[in-house]
Amino acid sequence: MKRSLRVSQVGEEGLIERIKRSIRTDSGVIRGIGDDCAVLKGPSGRHLLFASDMLVERVHFLRSSPPEKVGWKALAVNVSDIAAMGGLPRHAVVSLGLPPQTPVAWVDRLYRGLRRCARRFGVNLVGGDTNRSDRLVIDVAILGEVEPSRVVYRAGARAGDWLLVTGRLGGAVRSGRHLTFIPRVREARALTQKGRLHAMIDLSDGLSADLSRLCRASGLGALLDASRVPRRRGVSLRAALTEGEDFELLMAAPPREARRLLRWAKWHLRCGLHEIGRVVPRRGGSVLPAGFRHF
Amino acid sequence: MKRSLRVSQVGEEGLIERIKRSIRTDSGVIRGIGDDCAVLKGPSGRHLLFASDMLVERVHFLRSSPPEKVGWKALAVNVSDIAAMGGLPRHAVVSLGLPPQTPVAWVDRLYRGLRRCARRFGVNLVGGDTNRSDRLVIDVAILGEVEPSRVVYRAGARAGDWLLVTGRLGGAVRSGRHLTFIPRVREARALTQKGRLHAMIDLSDGLSADLSRLCRASGLGALLDASRVPRRRGVSLRAALTEGEDFELLMAAPPREARRLLRWAKWHLRCGLHEIGRVVPRRGGSVLPAGFRHF
Repeated sequence: MKRSLRVSQVGEEGLIERIKRSIRTDSGVIRGIGDDCAVLKGPSGRHLLFASDMLVERVHFLRSSPPEKVGWKALAVNVSDIAAMGGLPRHAVVSLGLPPQTPVAWVDRLYRGLRRCARRFGVNLVGGDTNRSDRLVIDVAILGEVEPSRVVYRAGARAGDWLLVTGRLGGAVRSGRHLTFIPRVREARALTQKGRLHAMIDLSDGLSADLSRLCRASGLGALLDASRVPRRRGVSLRAALTEGEDFELLMAAPPREARRLLRWAKWHLRCGLHEIGRVVPRRGGSVLPAGFRHF
Repeated sequence: MKRSLRVSQVGEEGLIERIKRSIRTDSGVIRGIGDDCAVLKGPSGRHLLFASDMLVERVHFLRSSPPEKVGWKALAVNVSDIAAMGGLPRHAVVSLGLPPQTPVAWVDRLYRGLRRCARRFGVNLVGGDTNRSDRLVIDVAILGEVEPSRVVYRAGARAGDWLLVTGRLGGAVRSGRHLTFIPRVREARALTQKGRLHAMIDLSDGLSADLSRLCRASGLGALLDASRVPRRRGVSLRAALTEGEDFELLMAAPPREARRLLRWAKWHLRCGLHEIGRVVPRRGGSVLPAGFRHF
């Protein structure tokens, strides 16, 4: 007898592909499923950005994690999705699944973290839902805005583009930084103001996986210069490529723009901006020949 | 030693009150936490409505529930929140928590239900998130629109208003209707076009609890005429008042408007519209003297 296909066998990408194929949208939708945010026709010449991200106990945090940090992360991962489109976050709703025995103080502290992140990024916490659940679940949906001239999609990279990444990668979970990271809103806004980006994505699942996504979305491949991947201290190349939860930004820009941005960043972008490779025509479907040294 | 306060002891209302008190919002927010939706300044003279609702396995549905129906419900409860503000639903994002062993066919069937509800109510499914989780969790966030002249809040009832309810109450879980109900968008739109409503809420937790909420939000009380509460066949008064998951609409309207709406509804509102009591000045904090017969 044929056993039915399981979610674990197709993976998140496979699942999203299946879902995407089945969905039709109307003219109010500029970009639907498959980017960091949906892009919608918005108020007075602006686009609306709409996204959601769920954190599940034992997958994204532990019951013993400081609840302020869990709250910060729950909002910050969503703010990072807005940053990855070049936008500004505006409003969020928070759905909670809570075991009945959860201390009220835990929820108070969770909200302290949510409020802290909200204040820092100008987000209004405007509603949500609370529910009984066996495990702690926090789902945040976020609404943002972006000027149509400054929105950057995951698709849009062109052959010859340079690949740039903010900050340094690796060790985010081990160091606890995955709970306290600063979403790159300011950096993304500055970069889309200073130069023209062809594509952008935030690094949630690791440079290797997210670069693949950016390339696949653009129908292209990439040559990665492994020696140039900016790593946190004590982090192996493998860790920097695969661990994830960095929430840095990866972008593709035409060479002239990239050079200009790199020069500008040297003096103005505290987190740093690093050239790590190039976008190339896809060769036989291979999207990520990692470890390539000179190009 | 003092044991710390648990979520089960303060309840959903208590939790929301705590959260609400701690939140500040900016001028882009017309109504924040505490209504069926947040109301935000929106495109070209329209308000945006923003809400989310989470369904958790074993609380809101069973693993054995038909996934199409679970999908329908996951979106329909959100559409109902938009209806309760007098608005039209527009876009939704779907966050899933899935045990790795979930059959892909389950997700396909879930999305069949989501798409069916989306098509029926003109909603674009534009994104979301999928995650590993021990239990099935589905969180939908919804975006809607409403003309500022037609938005109806939970607060706003006045002493002397008549209380009206759509449809018939009770038995929603037992009959399975909690998975297949039709959110009252069309009815709410017709009612806000035909007349002036002072307050509205959708009945998710039972007439008794939700009438209390509407009254508390308006700082008033209610006299409920128990004999007039419209019940489904074979449903006791107690069940009609307390079972919940009806997703009918409860509203308060000034007497003249209420009479006009009741006359109009007799010929034009197939689900029916029923007068069930009055809004009164609050007496000693008692908000719901149920069982009152004549008034």
